[in-house]
Amino acid sequence: MPTACWTCKSPDVVRIMNKDGDDEYYTGKWSKYGSDIINSVGCVDCHNPETMELQVNRKYLNDALKAEGKSVTLENATQQDMRTMVCAQCHVEYYFKKTPLANGKTSMVVTLPWAEGTSVESIEKYYDNIEFSDWVHQISKTPMLKAQHPEYETWKTGAHGKNNVSCADCHMPYTQEGGVKYTDHKIGNPLENMDKTCMNCHRVSEKSLLANINEKRARKDELAKKALVQLSAAHLEAGKAWEVGATEAEMKSILTDIRHSQWRLDYAIASHGAFYHAPEETLRTLGTALEKAGNARIELAKVLAKHGAGDYKAPEIKDKKQAQEIIGLPFEKLIEEEKGIPKWFNARMEKRG
Amino acid sequence: MPTACWTCKSPDVVRIMNKDGDDEYYTGKWSKYGSDIINSVGCVDCHNPETMELQVNRKYLNDALKAEGKSVTLENATQQDMRTMVCAQCHVEYYFKKTPLANGKTSMVVTLPWAEGTSVESIEKYYDNIEFSDWVHQISKTPMLKAQHPEYETWKTGAHGKNNVSCADCHMPYTQEGGVKYTDHKIGNPLENMDKTCMNCHRVSEKSLLANINEKRARKDELAKKALVQLSAAHLEAGKAWEVGATEAEMKSILTDIRHSQWRLDYAIASHGAFYHAPEETLRTLGTALEKAGNARIELAKVLAKHGAGDYKAPEIKDKKQAQEIIGLPFEKLIEEEKGIPKWFNARMEKRG
Repeated sequence: MPTACWTCKSPDVVRIMNKDGDDEYYTGKWSKYGSDIINSVGCVDCHNPETMELQVNRKYLNDALKAEGKSVTLENATQQDMRTMVCAQCHVEYYFKKTPLANGKTSMVVTLPWAEGTSVESIEKYYDNIEFSDWVHQISKTPMLKAQHPEYETWKTGAHGKNNVSCADCHMPYTQEGGVKYTDHKIGNPLENMDKTCMNCHRVSEKSLLANINEKRARKDELAKKALVQLSAAHLEAGKAWEVGATEAEMKSILTDIRHSQWRLDYAIASHGAFYHAPEETLRTLGTALEKAGNARIELAKVLAKHGAGDYKAPEIKDKKQAQEIIGLPFEKLIEEEKGIPKWFNARMEKRG
Repeated sequence: MPTACWTCKSPDVVRIMNKDGDDEYYTGKWSKYGSDIINSVGCVDCHNPETMELQVNRKYLNDALKAEGKSVTLENATQQDMRTMVCAQCHVEYYFKKTPLANGKTSMVVTLPWAEGTSVESIEKYYDNIEFSDWVHQISKTPMLKAQHPEYETWKTGAHGKNNVSCADCHMPYTQEGGVKYTDHKIGNPLENMDKTCMNCHRVSEKSLLANINEKRARKDELAKKALVQLSAAHLEAGKAWEVGATEAEMKSILTDIRHSQWRLDYAIASHGAFYHAPEETLRTLGTALEKAGNARIELAKVLAKHGAGDYKAPEIKDKKQAQEIIGLPFEKLIEEEKGIPKWFNARMEKRG
């Protein structure tokens, strides 16, 4: 793993970025800072350490806001905007951009893929344009995209985002103790404090709001599960197609449909709150995922038939264990590899005390 | 067309139902009442003619509410409920139930298919259980369902329905002239009087509400168009499959998927306001339509390949004219048939004066 993996993990990252500069920070492996990064997310991640004003301390966010060109940037962000922006440092879709340096090394820079926009199609287009893939699927050979957690991007499309109800408004509600009013820094699920969150704006019962949210979740779950079924079949059918002699030309548009379908499914569900932040955009996205998975499988049926495997039926996947067996996941081996302590770990623990 | 087609067209229907009884009213052909039904929708459609209180004057609505068993019925409807119920006499999904009478004749009775519930799946199940179809598709031989206009059913699932904002609240807004306040009976699009409709509850600008609604429409349009593309291909592929010798057994589950997919598409869009009344339910419904159309086409690809037609490619439909040519619609002949005046028409016009 590259150093970039530390970026959202600790206020020590801000300290190191300031000390070493971005070029050095983004170069090398995870272990390079293993004994240096010792504090979990803290004050300087979101605040100016002198004034305690809200402050974004990671450069890539503003670069991306400027590249996108339609949203508020940090130069013109209001205090209310900042109550979202500090969260958007990390709660976004990102990738590590390979960047050659003057010193001959290559840095892997956290980059938000927003230059075409922040919608699911815009980010897909961005990744397609640079022919980026997170990994290649072992069975179908699809160059896959993995959505991280596009919370900010999906939030923007829903009712709360459009009315600039910030992340902090619901996830860090104002709390009163005696005469002191403060923003709750135990960041969590707004549904656990509905009297301090939802009820400030919504004049209906907590019970009816919760029922409403559960219905949103059920709708998302329904379409997401259908998309999962289609996609797992598509990967297996593509694997079979390669096995029986399908050509690159035959498979190209099929793999693009699989890539796009799974990206869309992932974009819709990888941010766990998207079904709630943006129920309509989430359902639309899942609808397009279903269309594209369907298209892939229609073409796969033709290719399989052409190569004499028209009777192939992908196994239905009943549970996680069966799925792991089908893809040949070496589960025991992976557990074995995770055992043992990296060299830098003891130094780190000593520093933490 | 049976007499039942008149049911929502005129207050004369209420008069005839009261005079002749339901059995007689629902028996025979459209022309039977052609010269008797002369007024367009009027007072007695929704009001008690003695007291002018809101009143449902068509029996089938309460029968359906009772059969469904979960909703308010007319016996316990409040005044606010009635401001929706009078509209739900007509703005619903319905079919004509063939009903043998004691006199040996058969009546065709307006029936709301709600005994399993009012969701898209529940009504589908109801129709499947009685093996009902509105027509059989000439090309694919699918026993089709035609959604009429499930306005009430879809409204129930959205924010306005759940908060019992009635049809009249938005479509017949309160209006003031001098000292007189009344319900506007020029029933129309609430967006043409946003100051009297939306703005009573929503504390944002008209402009931002309109932008929001247009986004809902665009999301619906996107998935609906995708479903139309899939379904038109599915019908043509099914037609080809029959042509090359597909068997009933091979086609059964495919035709069920086409039937269900198109029913769901139709349920989502036949009520033009559904995208707005119930944006999430509409998108969920369209998502399932896309899944089922995809499944039909995956199986069709296999059947076509098995019968040596694996290369078949359904023509892409570019416009209405091309679609009409492909299905062999005898357009000129149909126009010719529509010319001329039915016998009862002159008598009707004389009565209207």
